[in-house]
Amino acid sequence: MKILTLGEVLLRLTPPAGTRLADAESLSVRFGGSESNVAAALSGFGDRAVHLTALPQGEIGQAAENSLRRYGVDTRFILKREGRMGAYFYEPGASLRAGRVIYDRARSVFAETPASAYALSEALEDVAHVHVSGITPALGPHAAELTQRVLMAAKAQGCTTSFDLNYRADLWTRTAAREAFEALFPYVDLCIASSDGLDLLGIQNGGSDLAACRNGAEELKARYGFRWAALTVRESISASENRLSGVLLGETFTTSPAFSVEILDRVGGGDAFAAGLIHALLHGFGEAISFAAACNALKHTLYGDCMCVPEEEVFAVLRGDTRLRR
Amino acid sequence: MKILTLGEVLLRLTPPAGTRLADAESLSVRFGGSESNVAAALSGFGDRAVHLTALPQGEIGQAAENSLRRYGVDTRFILKREGRMGAYFYEPGASLRAGRVIYDRARSVFAETPASAYALSEALEDVAHVHVSGITPALGPHAAELTQRVLMAAKAQGCTTSFDLNYRADLWTRTAAREAFEALFPYVDLCIASSDGLDLLGIQNGGSDLAACRNGAEELKARYGFRWAALTVRESISASENRLSGVLLGETFTTSPAFSVEILDRVGGGDAFAAGLIHALLHGFGEAISFAAACNALKHTLYGDCMCVPEEEVFAVLRGDTRLRR
Amino acid sequence: MKILTLGEVLLRLTPPAGTRLADAESLSVRFGGSESNVAAALSGFGDRAVHLTALPQGEIGQAAENSLRRYGVDTRFILKREGRMGAYFYEPGASLRAGRVIYDRARSVFAETPASAYALSEALEDVAHVHVSGITPALGPHAAELTQRVLMAAKAQGCTTSFDLNYRADLWTRTAAREAFEALFPYVDLCIASSDGLDLLGIQNGGSDLAACRNGAEELKARYGFRWAALTVRESISASENRLSGVLLGETFTTSPAFSVEILDRVGGGDAFAAGLIHALLHGFGEAISFAAACNALKHTLYGDCMCVPEEEVFAVLRGDTRLRR
Amino acid sequence: MKILTLGEVLLRLTPPAGTRLADAESLSVRFGGSESNVAAALSGFGDRAVHLTALPQGEIGQAAENSLRRYGVDTRFILKREGRMGAYFYEPGASLRAGRVIYDRARSVFAETPASAYALSEALEDVAHVHVSGITPALGPHAAELTQRVLMAAKAQGCTTSFDLNYRADLWTRTAAREAFEALFPYVDLCIASSDGLDLLGIQNGGSDLAACRNGAEELKARYGFRWAALTVRESISASENRLSGVLLGETFTTSPAFSVEILDRVGGGDAFAAGLIHALLHGFGEAISFAAACNALKHTLYGDCMCVPEEEVFAVLRGDTRLRR
Amino acid sequence: MKILTLGEVLLRLTPPAGTRLADAESLSVRFGGSESNVAAALSGFGDRAVHLTALPQGEIGQAAENSLRRYGVDTRFILKREGRMGAYFYEPGASLRAGRVIYDRARSVFAETPASAYALSEALEDVAHVHVSGITPALGPHAAELTQRVLMAAKAQGCTTSFDLNYRADLWTRTAAREAFEALFPYVDLCIASSDGLDLLGIQNGGSDLAACRNGAEELKARYGFRWAALTVRESISASENRLSGVLLGETFTTSPAFSVEILDRVGGGDAFAAGLIHALLHGFGEAISFAAACNALKHTLYGDCMCVPEEEVFAVLRGDTRLRR
Amino acid sequence: MKILTLGEVLLRLTPPAGTRLADAESLSVRFGGSESNVAAALSGFGDRAVHLTALPQGEIGQAAENSLRRYGVDTRFILKREGRMGAYFYEPGASLRAGRVIYDRARSVFAETPASAYALSEALEDVAHVHVSGITPALGPHAAELTQRVLMAAKAQGCTTSFDLNYRADLWTRTAAREAFEALFPYVDLCIASSDGLDLLGIQNGGSDLAACRNGAEELKARYGFRWAALTVRESISASENRLSGVLLGETFTTSPAFSVEILDRVGGGDAFAAGLIHALLHGFGEAISFAAACNALKHTLYGDCMCVPEEEVFAVLRGDTRLRR
Repeated sequence: MKILTLGEVLLRLTPPAGTRLADAESLSVRFGGSESNVAAALSGFGDRAVHLTALPQGEIGQAAENSLRRYGVDTRFILKREGRMGAYFYEPGASLRAGRVIYDRARSVFAETPASAYALSEALEDVAHVHVSGITPALGPHAAELTQRVLMAAKAQGCTTSFDLNYRADLWTRTAAREAFEALFPYVDLCIASSDGLDLLGIQNGGSDLAACRNGAEELKARYGFRWAALTVRESISASENRLSGVLLGETFTTSPAFSVEILDRVGGGDAFAAGLIHALLHGFGEAISFAAACNALKHTLYGDCMCVPEEEVFAVLRGDTRLRR
Repeated sequence: MKILTLGEVLLRLTPPAGTRLADAESLSVRFGGSESNVAAALSGFGDRAVHLTALPQGEIGQAAENSLRRYGVDTRFILKREGRMGAYFYEPGASLRAGRVIYDRARSVFAETPASAYALSEALEDVAHVHVSGITPALGPHAAELTQRVLMAAKAQGCTTSFDLNYRADLWTRTAAREAFEALFPYVDLCIASSDGLDLLGIQNGGSDLAACRNGAEELKARYGFRWAALTVRESISASENRLSGVLLGETFTTSPAFSVEILDRVGGGDAFAAGLIHALLHGFGEAISFAAACNALKHTLYGDCMCVPEEEVFAVLRGDTRLRR
Repeated sequence: MKILTLGEVLLRLTPPAGTRLADAESLSVRFGGSESNVAAALSGFGDRAVHLTALPQGEIGQAAENSLRRYGVDTRFILKREGRMGAYFYEPGASLRAGRVIYDRARSVFAETPASAYALSEALEDVAHVHVSGITPALGPHAAELTQRVLMAAKAQGCTTSFDLNYRADLWTRTAAREAFEALFPYVDLCIASSDGLDLLGIQNGGSDLAACRNGAEELKARYGFRWAALTVRESISASENRLSGVLLGETFTTSPAFSVEILDRVGGGDAFAAGLIHALLHGFGEAISFAAACNALKHTLYGDCMCVPEEEVFAVLRGDTRLRR
Repeated sequence: MKILTLGEVLLRLTPPAGTRLADAESLSVRFGGSESNVAAALSGFGDRAVHLTALPQGEIGQAAENSLRRYGVDTRFILKREGRMGAYFYEPGASLRAGRVIYDRARSVFAETPASAYALSEALEDVAHVHVSGITPALGPHAAELTQRVLMAAKAQGCTTSFDLNYRADLWTRTAAREAFEALFPYVDLCIASSDGLDLLGIQNGGSDLAACRNGAEELKARYGFRWAALTVRESISASENRLSGVLLGETFTTSPAFSVEILDRVGGGDAFAAGLIHALLHGFGEAISFAAACNALKHTLYGDCMCVPEEEVFAVLRGDTRLRR
Repeated sequence: MKILTLGEVLLRLTPPAGTRLADAESLSVRFGGSESNVAAALSGFGDRAVHLTALPQGEIGQAAENSLRRYGVDTRFILKREGRMGAYFYEPGASLRAGRVIYDRARSVFAETPASAYALSEALEDVAHVHVSGITPALGPHAAELTQRVLMAAKAQGCTTSFDLNYRADLWTRTAAREAFEALFPYVDLCIASSDGLDLLGIQNGGSDLAACRNGAEELKARYGFRWAALTVRESISASENRLSGVLLGETFTTSPAFSVEILDRVGGGDAFAAGLIHALLHGFGEAISFAAACNALKHTLYGDCMCVPEEEVFAVLRGDTRLRR
Repeated sequence: MKILTLGEVLLRLTPPAGTRLADAESLSVRFGGSESNVAAALSGFGDRAVHLTALPQGEIGQAAENSLRRYGVDTRFILKREGRMGAYFYEPGASLRAGRVIYDRARSVFAETPASAYALSEALEDVAHVHVSGITPALGPHAAELTQRVLMAAKAQGCTTSFDLNYRADLWTRTAAREAFEALFPYVDLCIASSDGLDLLGIQNGGSDLAACRNGAEELKARYGFRWAALTVRESISASENRLSGVLLGETFTTSPAFSVEILDRVGGGDAFAAGLIHALLHGFGEAISFAAACNALKHTLYGDCMCVPEEEVFAVLRGDTRLRR
């Protein structure tokens, strides 16, 4: 199954566990972005993922492209242009100390590349599904226009589409975000939201009460006419332990088990959830929402933004099998 | 607020997690000492901390000074002399394996520097508070004399003072320690003790029962006439998990919440507690003992002896907010 | 007490925590093997351990020998021959993600060395106890013959013997394993089995119910006439947390406490159990099975295959003392 | 330009500089192989490189594939099968201490995969050039047959071909190698040889005297009727310093400058030479042999088997410009 | 001697030796800037260095301040404001591969802070010397205005001043740079230039011929009326080896020896030269230019932007004493 | 051949290359001492080396013992006692920056252990040769007495003996050293001296002129009646490059080639020289002095104090073969 994802790729810099950014003498380098993380996970599951973005010319952009290629993501349609790479610093939390993300992404080459620069129709060839997130339209008018063009073209050629309702408060206001999102919803089949996402739309989130979440999912689906509405549910026991689950409302309402997970890396879980859900729905898995929630949990045990593992590792999580495999 | 701390700075050498000292091929280098850890924490909170000690001439002593300067501690009154640096090896524990500290501090340059060598009156200029601990008088006659001189001079010029009742069994006997401490108590306003400290003075410690701790605090305060008596309370669930709290008896009796913390680094928590308490009392925080206990807990999630963070990070612990900050 | 262990030593390669083998850029190097791990632990307890194996000539084999010598294991009877070193990759698990071991040991120099090549009688001189495991006979006809020869010679000269009933499904069938094991049992005094081991022999394992384990131990002892039958009991809460205990049936039936342990390294726990049990039985410790189970738990907190610690560290675990030692 | 390379990919394990394998506690992980190194370099220059090999199923094989994808090599035709990964240990030399490579590649999955298992005709589609080396036929009958099939098919469809005359003495005899190579020569356009390669064929090598090398190249070209004969020339000043050059005999005879290089990584230089020469010849560069020799030299300054850099970095070496670029 | 330096501090990110940025998995973190490097070096020599800049609020800015404090630089007058930290990536060269610096400094908080925001008169109190470089005015109108204000105020209060004629081609045109520099020259006592700097002013540089350099120094001094004109001279043998020297024209013309140095870190040498020259001139060293050139050479053997060493280490370089010191 | 060595083992702590001790955040751990380095090298060559020393009880002493056992050194006669471990910091030099050793060895457990505590006669059983150095008698009266006892007992039982004339200026005066050494010389067969050693005895050293060295060796041998007098010769081109050779005067006078070596680790070369010479003389190698000088050079290319390699690696240096070995 060929799937196109669209969004910025950021340089991620992380100090060692237990070390504050203010004290770090070395930083590990990864590249991540909500949508490219989805692409890497889909590639691991065996789908053909194509990622669309713009990167700076030269070694830093090459490093980002390499990181995607490594996971089998098709990078042929990525633009290389003069400009800077967006970046973020991720300081992992621990126990009662919260983790932290500090962005340095303003005026990145992706934000400053006009939508017309991309070879959209070639990139969309043979594509069955398109995935975007709420971060991209927040990055500025070019990225917003690109998001809309991609979704419209996808629908026009019969793709299914998904939208992860990520809201980044440092990028725009709640009002602007809601307005922008609602303009895109007509082109979206699967909408994925966390409790923050529901809040943004003025829909009551159900916290970690899956039954109460049903109401939220129903309102989300009904109000905007999505084919599927999915909610990720996170209970934060501490910065080192979360309980993760999800609900999905399509023709029926299904819920996942709750996975209690010790956190090795807090970033990218929602993207793993989205990838798991897309993969499970497109391939007709019986328990799509459970597969998605298990992806979310599994990602938290792996270092870096990206989880690129075969399906079987997710099924092992679903089986709850944690014995050493020989 | 200008605060002077006095005490030895040690070279701390630590193997990687899970590796015994007997197997280590590399050691991380930090510098720490009960009182200089307090200075670094106070500096992080915005106080002007001056640390008084003696260090060996040459690169090793320079490394120690650099580590203090890094955190904004004023090192102008530190002496540099011929001699050796005290050191300790810290092997972190894990789960049911206890951590371990091995000292190699005998005959350090600090222990062998006479009290008369320090420029005490210049160092104390404009100082509002002086902090010492029970380790310093244990290091030998020079250090004991210096402790007394500093406390007396502090009181003479109207400073408030604090004393952390640290007892190091490898340095002297319980009898000698108690006698020395009691000779200093007349110059102390705030006395901080753990259950070990109370034991040394023959006061019943209340374990982790905060109500029972009140009795200990009352006897401590009453017997020696301190303005404030504070107790740090530690329940050791395992080498990886502790529950930390504290009580403070000043004009009223207050208790902190108990913070359950996964331990990333076991050393320096009591010093963070002391710094938090001093800072909170001097700046008139409403919940001084809670601020102090939160400092103790937060320190356990940070690598190294020193916690040098802005106040806001402590308040976040008090709020129990462990969600990822973006 | 001089003890001989026999078995293959493998090169162990491990990625950093949280990193999959597919993503690793560096691997830590250790050497391990079920029986040589026992030798290292015994040496730590003060016994004289002699290990018998074959290693490749050249630097890789030298590295393996160095790793044993480091722990005081006598390597004089190890053969160095043309051939390859067996190896395995260990990817640590975390939380709900299982750990994994990938073997690459086929046709190793140990598997291809004929039993007649070893100086058995010299190696067995003054030996009081011999330890082997079920892995060695699985490695091929040479290793199987060697196992038998060593056990027979040991009994002939009056040594006690122990056998760890390790079954490796990638090496042979259950039928072949059971047959081979049963042929060796007449020469075995102490038989150590996990629940997998009992299953192989068609004996009902008692799970984590120590009372039910008694039945298994009784059947194991009675059926084969062992002097001691011991079971290791592992409850897998998650890949990061296990509960470990054991039972021993000799003249009486004894059980250990259950140790709940956070796992830093999952490999080698059973070997530490075996070493602890052998040491405790040979030296007449009152609570042999508790010492053994504490060894198992303690090993899980130490990085690498080998635990080489003084007895006192095991006793500290038995006392449940996890406070920082200064 | 689409180019197919064929050959085994090995796991490469390297201790830190200055550390012997017998002392190493960690090994860096790279993947390399003579022909896949050529593929990675060609991809860096902008060619479309397809690599053909067989890898083990599971994570280790995935790691190898990831390492190729990272550099943009097309891995679609790589087989994944049950079996083991070939590996080698590389201990870097320094100054008067020679470096060392220890192979552990016997019975790898590549060596044991029959030629018929590959989708040769699909893999060769649109391919303009095919590159193989003398290592592949040495790996056993399957690999030898595969080499022949690929070269014959390439010629049949009008591709140009290149052959790097690598001789590995641990894999076969000189007689067997020469016989096998000569059977392949009719299908080879460009033959690349070091002095060892010439020796194998009984042709006098010219050492580092480029004029004398001309005779060797002329005999090589004339005897076997190659379109191009190229020689790599290496003078070993020490394990840390080599002088590298090359000669090419096509329609005319050309020589490169000699590049004196401090060696950061000794492995893969010949592969970079081959890639540079293929690229330069296929794209009609004026100074093909200089480009190739500069690639060889540049590779020695980069860690790992693979050099994947843009053309411009090679041209900078040719210009001799070593000033810091801002 | 109290000395004020003014300029941007950048986050410096560096891959391990031999690894291209496009391949790096971790980056070492240092902070550097031409002028703050001078401050750190002066502090090492015992001068009181005050650095003036603006840093982002929060942890990244704190890390930068910590790095300066570590070396004893007075950071009291540094502003903390909303904004981003300028950064650069430094890929070390080796042998015939040139090193590379990639800047990402546009719109940094320093560039966007108006000159009026700084407490110039407080910062200049008791200052004897002010040092700036040609980078600062290139960063934009605010920084240019600040440079001018600082130099004018310095002269007005009788300080001596120095100017390092750094030209960064990515920041502005040669014409703009020359114009801006010439506007500042009336306030400059000591002008330091490399051959690039002379070129910018249209003065013939003498390459590595110190006699020919004299002409350049004479024209520089005469044309602009400097009290001292100094030239740094670098011959680039390779990216790993440079020959470094310098000339100084004050009342007399003096030249340094040429130091042949193997390069461990290529960045910051010119700043060490400037610091050495300022220190030597202000303290009346006899061989100021030799001290400066030795600083330049010594810096190349130390990792990071900053050299903070006692004078004695520079004198040892001047003596040519490279024997191990015990 | 069984050989006993006697002397202190020190904890060696080293920062990464290019990092000053004052800036180091981690230190690599090795253990070394002039005489135990000799033991490790001899063990590598196949001799049976027994080392005599005293180590602190506990983990640090255990780490030291492990490091010797790793190299096959017999540690059975090492005492474990209360006390501290001597240590030293080694900051590697580079190019024109000299390396540096900072000792912290005063009052170590070895220095404070009386000679009578050792089981000398058991340790000397079957020993053919005894090696000591001039460091041991410098450590205090206990160590001096021990040195004398060991040498006298060795001669009494017919061993040959060697003495490395190491002089450590921080430990005692030249006069005291000379007096102590001369008292030991009657028991010494082979005396090894550097130019410093000759200076101490008032013998003119020949610098790097091997002919002139002959005079020094002749005077040394004649004056004290040694069987062999050997001189190590070091020309320090820079901190990164030395030229190393040696001369030996026994029945005849022989000289080694001069080995130009790039220095990876500067410490322990003289000990490798001593080990090579002892091994070559005891085993009757034809070119003993060349073997010794090659050992010295080879050691400089290996990280750590100890060189433990097979003879063959030294012969490769003698052959000057620096090509990659496959």
